[in-house]
Amino acid sequence: MKKFSYKSLFDVTQNIFEKIGLPPDEAYQAADILLQAELRNIPTHGLMRMPEYINLWKTKRITVKPDFKIIRQTPSTALVDGGKGFGLVTGPKAMKIAIEKAKNAGTGWVAVRNTYHYGIAGYYAMMALEHDMIGISMTNANPLVAPTFGLTGMLGTNPIAVAVPTKNQPPFVADFATAPVARGKLDVMVEKGLDAPEGVLQDKYGHPTTNAAALREGGALKTLGGDPERGGHKGFCLTAIVDILTAVLPGANFGPTVVPTLGYVKDKKNSEDKGIGHFFGAIRIDAFQTAEEFKEYMDEWITTFRKAETIPGKERVIIPGDPERESEKEKLKNGIELSPKTLKSLLEITSEFGLNFPEQ
Amino acid sequence: MKKFSYKSLFDVTQNIFEKIGLPPDEAYQAADILLQAELRNIPTHGLMRMPEYINLWKTKRITVKPDFKIIRQTPSTALVDGGKGFGLVTGPKAMKIAIEKAKNAGTGWVAVRNTYHYGIAGYYAMMALEHDMIGISMTNANPLVAPTFGLTGMLGTNPIAVAVPTKNQPPFVADFATAPVARGKLDVMVEKGLDAPEGVLQDKYGHPTTNAAALREGGALKTLGGDPERGGHKGFCLTAIVDILTAVLPGANFGPTVVPTLGYVKDKKNSEDKGIGHFFGAIRIDAFQTAEEFKEYMDEWITTFRKAETIPGKERVIIPGDPERESEKEKLKNGIELSPKTLKSLLEITSEFGLNFPEQ
Repeated sequence: MKKFSYKSLFDVTQNIFEKIGLPPDEAYQAADILLQAELRNIPTHGLMRMPEYINLWKTKRITVKPDFKIIRQTPSTALVDGGKGFGLVTGPKAMKIAIEKAKNAGTGWVAVRNTYHYGIAGYYAMMALEHDMIGISMTNANPLVAPTFGLTGMLGTNPIAVAVPTKNQPPFVADFATAPVARGKLDVMVEKGLDAPEGVLQDKYGHPTTNAAALREGGALKTLGGDPERGGHKGFCLTAIVDILTAVLPGANFGPTVVPTLGYVKDKKNSEDKGIGHFFGAIRIDAFQTAEEFKEYMDEWITTFRKAETIPGKERVIIPGDPERESEKEKLKNGIELSPKTLKSLLEITSEFGLNFPEQ
Repeated sequence: MKKFSYKSLFDVTQNIFEKIGLPPDEAYQAADILLQAELRNIPTHGLMRMPEYINLWKTKRITVKPDFKIIRQTPSTALVDGGKGFGLVTGPKAMKIAIEKAKNAGTGWVAVRNTYHYGIAGYYAMMALEHDMIGISMTNANPLVAPTFGLTGMLGTNPIAVAVPTKNQPPFVADFATAPVARGKLDVMVEKGLDAPEGVLQDKYGHPTTNAAALREGGALKTLGGDPERGGHKGFCLTAIVDILTAVLPGANFGPTVVPTLGYVKDKKNSEDKGIGHFFGAIRIDAFQTAEEFKEYMDEWITTFRKAETIPGKERVIIPGDPERESEKEKLKNGIELSPKTLKSLLEITSEFGLNFPEQ
């Protein structure tokens, strides 16, 4: 795979977004989120997504001049209509509102409808850290996950991210899809001819399968936990809660009514397109304890788990956020690899728009 | 197993709590939570717990005259010190504060320290329903769950409950431990000589095991999802987030520093006893949409999943809250069964306190 510098990929990404009409500050913001995904080694939410974004813009499902509106608010909440803008632009604006609300009310909670894919959930949660707040971010997505005992994908892989400030330790940043395996990881298994692990997929008849291509062939992901004897119904509860907070609460498309952006997901409901939904939260630490007290105690939490005894063959308990931060450091130094497919699509897009693509 | 009427068990439970010195209204409140667990078929959080509660009172870890205090507050938040009172008394008071905060600020969030086992998480979440609010409830607990790659139990089975109001449908009530299998279910497997499912337990050496007695023999529960290839690290994130919100945020004992109430859990840290912690939330629906609009849309969510196509051999997708509500109806009519062990312990307690135990 070819490697490119962070700066060069950032610039070309910003240029693409400017070319389709985003104002420079918004193009910068959108590029920052995609490049954070690359640095944090979550390429499924990075530049790989560019063709999908461009396609949504070309087919006029997304506009670069959305009417972003606060529809309703209270001291600690806001309902935002994203006006069919990019999630990468709407999301940061909405999270900033949550942070501002928290400054006055102790916490801030913003639900968003009429928005689209917003990149990595963790980006938004981490926005709260510099304000000494716990940040929370969730979104719904294309229906790929079957509810417990259900035959077809009816829920998104609906991620949850929570970022927690610390004193001397690096922050705790959990950012995870609530499904057992990421769609992108299944794609990699298909490319490599590997089987998927047992217990995470079912085929179009509802039978367990290890066929990593099951989603493309009418199958579905199981919920986190898999079968009920291993707690899969709890995974269903979790993914459902994210769907309710992100979509039912703001009035976006929920579960199977989400208008798909993936070619192989059937549009089951011919729904009115109200976009997907996001839910953001900011909790001011000093609403509960002094930031100093809390951050020291959080450091103690992290070091307690970091130095935990491990099972045979494993060196350490991994603190959420550690691998991503290590990746960020490495890629800033050594450059970012792009898969051949992502590179090809970026070359096509830049060529179409008359933009230069960086040398390696 | 013997069956008793709801009313007779309620009365004897209230009598026991009054006998140890709780004021009548608080004894009524505590009995209501335990009996709700019985009705909802969660006996592991019902009368089975009475010996543990009595023991905590006898050993003076719990007081019946706690100094319940709001330590800090903002328009949408409060930090509560439970003063080492029963979670069954402190919990409802704290959740009421969250609901009152939400009336004015749109949402209310209350973190509690110096408190103990609070029964079923769902009870508190459901308190929000009559106010047209979404209710949220979490707690930490005895450390039984090993973090991903960890050798020993360092986290509780830390439950999350979320209750969502509806119009004509019964409410959505998710109430689930974030570990793959409940401790009580493992106890039942031991009694019946059954193996535990694969992928949910490890022995004291960290090796996978299906020995249902593993927890009593120095082993630990895995996180929801099991091994990382099936998303177990996401389960770790989830259980960790509950620990941080319920314990680090209010300053209670977190993870492995929780002073155990189970005989077979070693007190690893000889910690100062700051109790366990709870975290409660109330979200006013009409902070986002009119309650009417939301409840109709939530009904649509529920009916969409209720009528979903199912996998072979399964009749329906189960909506969170359905089985518990069906159980409640049945037990109110036909009575509540007590296991021989629970019955024996209740007979001992009532005998000790000179109370009558109801006829069958």
